[in-house]
Amino acid sequence: MLFPVSWTNSPAKPSAQFLELAVQRQRSLVKPAGSLGRLETIAVHLAGMQGTETPTADNIHISVFVGDHGVCEEGISAYPQAVTAQMITNFANGGAAINVLAKLLGAALEVVNLGTVTDTPDLPGVINARIAPCTRNFVDVDAMTSQQVAKALHYGDEAAERAARSGCQLFIGGEMGIGNTTSAAAIACALLNKNPMQLAGPGSGLDAAGVRHKAEVIIQALQRHDDDEHPMAVLKSFGGFEIAALAGAIAGCAARGLPVLIDGFIVTVAALIAVSEQPDIRPWLLFSHRSAEPGHQAVLDALNATPLVDMDMRLGEGSGAAVAVPLIRAACALHNEMASFDTAGVDERLQIATKPGKVKRHD
Amino acid sequence: MLFPVSWTNSPAKPSAQFLELAVQRQRSLVKPAGSLGRLETIAVHLAGMQGTETPTADNIHISVFVGDHGVCEEGISAYPQAVTAQMITNFANGGAAINVLAKLLGAALEVVNLGTVTDTPDLPGVINARIAPCTRNFVDVDAMTSQQVAKALHYGDEAAERAARSGCQLFIGGEMGIGNTTSAAAIACALLNKNPMQLAGPGSGLDAAGVRHKAEVIIQALQRHDDDEHPMAVLKSFGGFEIAALAGAIAGCAARGLPVLIDGFIVTVAALIAVSEQPDIRPWLLFSHRSAEPGHQAVLDALNATPLVDMDMRLGEGSGAAVAVPLIRAACALHNEMASFDTAGVDERLQIATKPGKVKRHD
Repeated sequence: MLFPVSWTNSPAKPSAQFLELAVQRQRSLVKPAGSLGRLETIAVHLAGMQGTETPTADNIHISVFVGDHGVCEEGISAYPQAVTAQMITNFANGGAAINVLAKLLGAALEVVNLGTVTDTPDLPGVINARIAPCTRNFVDVDAMTSQQVAKALHYGDEAAERAARSGCQLFIGGEMGIGNTTSAAAIACALLNKNPMQLAGPGSGLDAAGVRHKAEVIIQALQRHDDDEHPMAVLKSFGGFEIAALAGAIAGCAARGLPVLIDGFIVTVAALIAVSEQPDIRPWLLFSHRSAEPGHQAVLDALNATPLVDMDMRLGEGSGAAVAVPLIRAACALHNEMASFDTAGVDERLQIATKPGKVKRHD
Repeated sequence: MLFPVSWTNSPAKPSAQFLELAVQRQRSLVKPAGSLGRLETIAVHLAGMQGTETPTADNIHISVFVGDHGVCEEGISAYPQAVTAQMITNFANGGAAINVLAKLLGAALEVVNLGTVTDTPDLPGVINARIAPCTRNFVDVDAMTSQQVAKALHYGDEAAERAARSGCQLFIGGEMGIGNTTSAAAIACALLNKNPMQLAGPGSGLDAAGVRHKAEVIIQALQRHDDDEHPMAVLKSFGGFEIAALAGAIAGCAARGLPVLIDGFIVTVAALIAVSEQPDIRPWLLFSHRSAEPGHQAVLDALNATPLVDMDMRLGEGSGAAVAVPLIRAACALHNEMASFDTAGVDERLQIATKPGKVKRHD
């Protein structure tokens, strides 16, 4: 398999010096220590990743990776496979959730077409990265060839390169592909040695019988798979083109020192592949939201990740990450713009905090 | 006691017609039904409150109510009482967290000074609503006179009136007052019949011994209080000027049909007073964040409220509400701007969702 450079080079660590400066700055701001909670840790983490005293998330690059899945012939999705290509047109026309959110954030948005069963014309804002009409049905054979995996990783790495060159401060990867929660659940089960009955979920809207069938399809596929737990082998066996591209993009961003905001279930599985292959990628990741898809929590746990919000979303497209961006922007603004105790002329805390008692009796 | 009109008039209900239209619109958007989770319910709720097909939260009015507490002489805060007045100057100079967040949101911000022990000069952006230098120590006597309660409610109602006149779509009340988590915990214990050992928390930063002392102070005060569980009697007995003003502002917004985004522990206690007095206020409230202050959950439970985010914040000033605003804006943008299945030319869900099976065998 031919990996992009970003997979073989170990990413640098976020700057310990700027992390420490950020911790000191947080201590100086006019507020009880720790009272901004997770907004403090986000700002500190981002300052370290960006190697700056003033972390920002003003400029954001969103790449939505799209691909079709051979496993759809098992009847594992609530939507027809034609929807994948139809959604590419919807993205190009600006009508999808991620279009609305990207506009609201002033973020750059691109769509990367890795291959759909129904062909689409070339469309504005859609990058042609077609590998094949779809992956193969992973119940019977590996979803991808080694060459296809390498191509998809490379297309993801190229998105990271475009993002880095654009001068953005944060990368978001999104996905669209009918059937891809089945692919993601299979990957998670194989990497984490979990039972598909626990990790398979309704995806875009299966009922209980549909979820059970989906789990059975994954169980069958895991039996076909040869127990190779190497992340690249698992990706090849079950992965969608878009999941492989996401893994390549995440690795590519880490290699270039660009922070990544991870979306929901599918993207977290791609992150799990990337981090399993190269643990030094982990410090470059922020986690945005907890998906309603039941398998997400197990993957978050494996990555030791606590997402910022839990809005019961399960749409994909990078929408959960986009929704969480303003929390990061708020964290940055507070870190950069609040007054310090010194400059504001506000008293710091009392010694009395540790010796409570009637003040009026001791004055 | 003289209440503002907003307390005696029952608020109207949000529009059932626009709620229903919003539910229908959500069903038509190009996404699996329910896949935007809580963003869908926020948009629907807001459409009903605002009586519109296109809910918005672009224009926001933030009023921060400030007052000092007589109970500070019991040594229940980690910070000296002089900080309350110092923070008014910090607000006027733009250096506090809520200044930074209001700027980020493009929100209007005003500070209402209800009385501080250390006097402050008249400052730009600070409304003079001084009632007294501070409340009385509620361990010994009622914190406020009936006249003071009425004045504070009225000052809150005036803020609601200014907000409604400004044409804003959402009101946020914030607070600052050294000692006010003690006041809020006492109110919550009296209204909800809870043990102060459970509801008293570190506030701005007490250690374990400090929290225990704070709970003992509240226990003593509850024994002094005459068991009158009427919300106005409880407010008079333990309340801060700023908590009473917040209750007045919340009631005033509901009476004027203006949605309110509730901040953390203190503001939720003010909402509990308002809703206990007038239950028709409840439908006008959205809840922003779960505070790290341990008493908050019990008050949220009493109001049957699930906040939008849990960032482990405990700063006050309305900062938790301000941080959650972009989630409401995202909900509105998605509701108003996404394409429908019809216009986007995207297929709706398969019948197969309820009858899973191999598609290739049944084609």
